[in-house]
Amino acid sequence: MQRPGGRTARVREKVLDAVGPLLVEHGYDGLTVDAVAARSGVHRATVYRRWRDVGGLLADVLDAAGTDSWTPPDTGSLEEDLRVLNEEVCDALTEEPSVAKALIAASFRSEGAADALRRFWDDRYARCVPVVERAVSRGELRPPVDAHRLLVAATAPLYHQLVLFRTDPDPALPSEAAHAAVLAARAGAFARRTDHAQAGR
Amino acid sequence: MQRPGGRTARVREKVLDAVGPLLVEHGYDGLTVDAVAARSGVHRATVYRRWRDVGGLLADVLDAAGTDSWTPPDTGSLEEDLRVLNEEVCDALTEEPSVAKALIAASFRSEGAADALRRFWDDRYARCVPVVERAVSRGELRPPVDAHRLLVAATAPLYHQLVLFRTDPDPALPSEAAHAAVLAARAGAFARRTDHAQAGR
Repeated sequence: MQRPGGRTARVREKVLDAVGPLLVEHGYDGLTVDAVAARSGVHRATVYRRWRDVGGLLADVLDAAGTDSWTPPDTGSLEEDLRVLNEEVCDALTEEPSVAKALIAASFRSEGAADALRRFWDDRYARCVPVVERAVSRGELRPPVDAHRLLVAATAPLYHQLVLFRTDPDPALPSEAAHAAVLAARAGAFARRTDHAQAGR
Repeated sequence: MQRPGGRTARVREKVLDAVGPLLVEHGYDGLTVDAVAARSGVHRATVYRRWRDVGGLLADVLDAAGTDSWTPPDTGSLEEDLRVLNEEVCDALTEEPSVAKALIAASFRSEGAADALRRFWDDRYARCVPVVERAVSRGELRPPVDAHRLLVAATAPLYHQLVLFRTDPDPALPSEAAHAAVLAARAGAFARRTDHAQAGR
């Protein structure tokens, strides 16, 4: 383990800060260890030794993003929490340039980036579980509820439209997808599975 | 317009049949017009003249796939139709090798492929509208229902898990996603928007 805030941490910050801008400017094909070293001002031998290749750099960007202090919205209403969450997803995917979209695209090129993206999303969805737990404790939903499945149902249409279909952002979609997921949840769609069924996941 | 079944159509078939296998074997980076010409046995000058580049070839593969006679399931039940549809999506994305997954990955590399993929999906979702219309006429859903939004809600979790998260296929997901979409639809989640709101889509 490295001590946080030391020289190693500062080098890491400089290097990782160079990756996103290079990725959105030049795409995956234009992203090289040498370019990252040049932009960050860190010696290329150091970058090669520590991150090895572009996949290692992308994976570390995502791993570093996963150590922030982000918490999900807590508005007092499940549907409003999910709507605000979807607006955040929508903003991240539609801002220009979008590092999030560039990282998703890169995940189709690099196994390391794909694994790191999965870790990042796993962590983000896990951090959102309290949104569902709070709704249950307020009596908005009857337990048991599989929070992960509810959260995926609420957010998946955003990714489908913005990342795969690449349609123009639909300003109504964040609230509509949140609304649909809440109606499904209230009707019992995400009642937790038996342990046996969960093992298959 | 070319006459179907003529020499031009046979050349097109030979060329397009070569693209998918090359794409899944060598990826986008290994897909070249020359390799397609060699594998198809069609003169490379012909391939360059007619398809120009890899983007043109991928777009035509998708456009050709969109002219098949595929129709959605018609089982007599909305939830069962959506489940069968999701099983088809799941099969296409998890078969090895998966041309569908390779085409989605290629859509992040080529604008032409991305546009053609959107056309393909638009057509596929449009062909599925009768699934929802039949449910309405059977009295399973109260009109109005925005069929497109319902169909996206039913299928989006599959793409999210298999294309973006890249988790192992979950055998329960096709039926669970179908079930959740039907519960949301019955609760009125996809009531058609006003014309004003639809114009923003």
